[in-house]
Amino acid sequence: MLEALKKEVCEANLELVKHGLVIFTWGNVSAIDRTSGLVVIKPSGVAYEQMKPEDMVVVDLDGHIVEGSLKPSSDTPTHLVLYKAFPAIGGVVHTHSTYATSWAQAGIDLPNIGTTHADYFSGPIPCTRDMSQAEVEGAYEEETGNVIVERFRKLNPEYIPGVLVKNHGPFSWGKDAHEAVHHAVVMEQVAKMAFVALTVNPRLSMNPYLIQKHFFRKHGPNAYYGQ
Amino acid sequence: MLEALKKEVCEANLELVKHGLVIFTWGNVSAIDRTSGLVVIKPSGVAYEQMKPEDMVVVDLDGHIVEGSLKPSSDTPTHLVLYKAFPAIGGVVHTHSTYATSWAQAGIDLPNIGTTHADYFSGPIPCTRDMSQAEVEGAYEEETGNVIVERFRKLNPEYIPGVLVKNHGPFSWGKDAHEAVHHAVVMEQVAKMAFVALTVNPRLSMNPYLIQKHFFRKHGPNAYYGQ
Amino acid sequence: MLEALKKEVCEANLELVKHGLVIFTWGNVSAIDRTSGLVVIKPSGVAYEQMKPEDMVVVDLDGHIVEGSLKPSSDTPTHLVLYKAFPAIGGVVHTHSTYATSWAQAGIDLPNIGTTHADYFSGPIPCTRDMSQAEVEGAYEEETGNVIVERFRKLNPEYIPGVLVKNHGPFSWGKDAHEAVHHAVVMEQVAKMAFVALTVNPRLSMNPYLIQKHFFRKHGPNAYYGQ
Amino acid sequence: MLEALKKEVCEANLELVKHGLVIFTWGNVSAIDRTSGLVVIKPSGVAYEQMKPEDMVVVDLDGHIVEGSLKPSSDTPTHLVLYKAFPAIGGVVHTHSTYATSWAQAGIDLPNIGTTHADYFSGPIPCTRDMSQAEVEGAYEEETGNVIVERFRKLNPEYIPGVLVKNHGPFSWGKDAHEAVHHAVVMEQVAKMAFVALTVNPRLSMNPYLIQKHFFRKHGPNAYYGQ
Repeated sequence: MLEALKKEVCEANLELVKHGLVIFTWGNVSAIDRTSGLVVIKPSGVAYEQMKPEDMVVVDLDGHIVEGSLKPSSDTPTHLVLYKAFPAIGGVVHTHSTYATSWAQAGIDLPNIGTTHADYFSGPIPCTRDMSQAEVEGAYEEETGNVIVERFRKLNPEYIPGVLVKNHGPFSWGKDAHEAVHHAVVMEQVAKMAFVALTVNPRLSMNPYLIQKHFFRKHGPNAYYGQ
Repeated sequence: MLEALKKEVCEANLELVKHGLVIFTWGNVSAIDRTSGLVVIKPSGVAYEQMKPEDMVVVDLDGHIVEGSLKPSSDTPTHLVLYKAFPAIGGVVHTHSTYATSWAQAGIDLPNIGTTHADYFSGPIPCTRDMSQAEVEGAYEEETGNVIVERFRKLNPEYIPGVLVKNHGPFSWGKDAHEAVHHAVVMEQVAKMAFVALTVNPRLSMNPYLIQKHFFRKHGPNAYYGQ
Repeated sequence: MLEALKKEVCEANLELVKHGLVIFTWGNVSAIDRTSGLVVIKPSGVAYEQMKPEDMVVVDLDGHIVEGSLKPSSDTPTHLVLYKAFPAIGGVVHTHSTYATSWAQAGIDLPNIGTTHADYFSGPIPCTRDMSQAEVEGAYEEETGNVIVERFRKLNPEYIPGVLVKNHGPFSWGKDAHEAVHHAVVMEQVAKMAFVALTVNPRLSMNPYLIQKHFFRKHGPNAYYGQ
Repeated sequence: MLEALKKEVCEANLELVKHGLVIFTWGNVSAIDRTSGLVVIKPSGVAYEQMKPEDMVVVDLDGHIVEGSLKPSSDTPTHLVLYKAFPAIGGVVHTHSTYATSWAQAGIDLPNIGTTHADYFSGPIPCTRDMSQAEVEGAYEEETGNVIVERFRKLNPEYIPGVLVKNHGPFSWGKDAHEAVHHAVVMEQVAKMAFVALTVNPRLSMNPYLIQKHFFRKHGPNAYYGQ
């Protein structure tokens, strides 16, 4: 079942390797079939070099395995919370990519200080709050999804397609698995550039209308841009 | 038409990939045929892996498409302003390369603190001013060219073959597309080294006569240098 | 003798190259056969490109060569001290990898500030004290092992599978040579991320219960995690 | 003539590329045949990808071309000064490698803060003084050699096989061209690690007896070390 989606999710996972976002088996990509409400996700602990579409695991939105002989990624509950809370998204990515994870460890929002960032995100990439001890010791992976959703209460996940989970790392999403990976690559790159830029000049700033211009020339009804 | 120039522009775009200056379809290179006043530029949104000379788009200096079935890069108006204002240049490059873009985000001139920099630029690499809301919300890409030209009012574009557009990224140019790419590589490298050097010693300096020596042993009538 | 272990140790040494942890002939991996008490270690000064399993040297725990025509790594005495003091470990790695070595040069414990770190280490990666002049001028490589063991007096080497030797570089270990290399890769990555994160926000912190959660979902009787 | 030495110098130049120390045609390696007093050096402006042993240029210690149809590297006079002043050296390398050049731009000695550094250099890697306007506008490349030699008045070039030329970049040397390249790689690596280490902890230090131990276990009559 869902053979095309399994192939897409497998390919998207391998793109993480190609873009240098993962080490070992770290990182995972999933995609949802909105018609059936089924999610295809990377299996747990399989090496990228030998990963095949048929290794992908199919789960329903409650996390029950519907197809697949391998265990789904341990981060599956976080992915499922995001699919349930953000109805417009079709793919989710989690990595421990170097610079985005460093910003997550820094525990502060990644400021929108350049057009590279504004081309994809209409504002800062938010960082979640500290999770409580009860959340961490309870259904931790699901609660990780919950603090992300809480952080987006006043934010549009289609305009801000990623988040930094505090002390942990980035999650990103998009209309499908490939776009979610694309956003993961962008987050890593803008995290690196913000690190360098703010080291060079801690007092830098960017005009809000420049952010708006860049975001809306690539998104929404008046989009016209392509490099 | 302009088959040789299309091939050159296509190759120059691929050099951006080879030198690690671009991700996805970011970045664009153009070249001008001064006899006909026609500009050859990368098409919009085409993947570098499959880019061919015949994909290049030919436009005139007013931005009208003269040949090509694809859309020219959205940054075309910026390139055209530069060709009109700087008559000695034959190629233009725009990238979001990591360190040069970080300096553009920092919003300050990239100081001339080493001979690597002085071998190619006779002074700091200037950063443009903040664009006004009217400029950003108007003919934005053309106005981007205009603020670059404004920044060069008292500067020689042949002696300073590149610029940092504030909060955006680097543009560079040269006598042809290949030299413009060459200067883009140099800007990225000197931006990285200036980041490291100034972190190590924020009070560093370089004597003006050393800058002059390095620039003029490679440029102008008394040039003699080759490594 | 110990042909399988020699093959494993040779492969583990080559993994150091693959993961970008070594330059030239720097770095060395060993493994112990606990039944015979014999240690297999990389020979001294052999280029990785031409290293073969039969080049590995077999020594006993007193450092006497039992088999092999080449000299064992000069760091052999350090490895042997660790095998004698930490009975649960089966492999040891030493590198001069860039970021872990930089932290060793900084001479401070590498703080546990992210889940990537906490997935493998239940606390900070400790840095050893300054060695005394007598230790350095005496049986230096053996004393290097001794200061590591001293640093672990109140630490569990199975929960903290690595150390920074002050002004020198990282040592890591694991149940076998491959796991020791795995930990060396993790140390390099978390050292890099801690550098970036602390530059961005020197006042960052991580809740102890989050560290515990991440460590124990991957280690001990209640482990359940796989990415 | 000197066919073996030309081959060695050509190979050593290509090692610069392999180790990521050069961009474009930057960087140059030479070696001297002490019997004849002739120096073999990289030609000026030849791309590394097409460089062949027969392209190498032979000059005497006064800089006269003895064999070769290409121009010798413009840095030749600096190399010659070093061969004349340091009789024990057989090879010289100049690069603009990223981190070593950044330290040269910072304009301060690269402190000896780790055993990786101490394995090859018995003290800090010195930085030359500012060159005077007369020196820069005179026989500049030769004067570059002179300020290096001046900086080594109280230093042993066999114990400190490299230097940072202020605002310019590193020069290194060794008993032959390959060892000079080896030292160039080490300088780049220790420059990178010192940048990271000092950013993490600006007050770090290293005991002099540890420096001595590491240097002399690899050099001089009592050397015994190999990794």
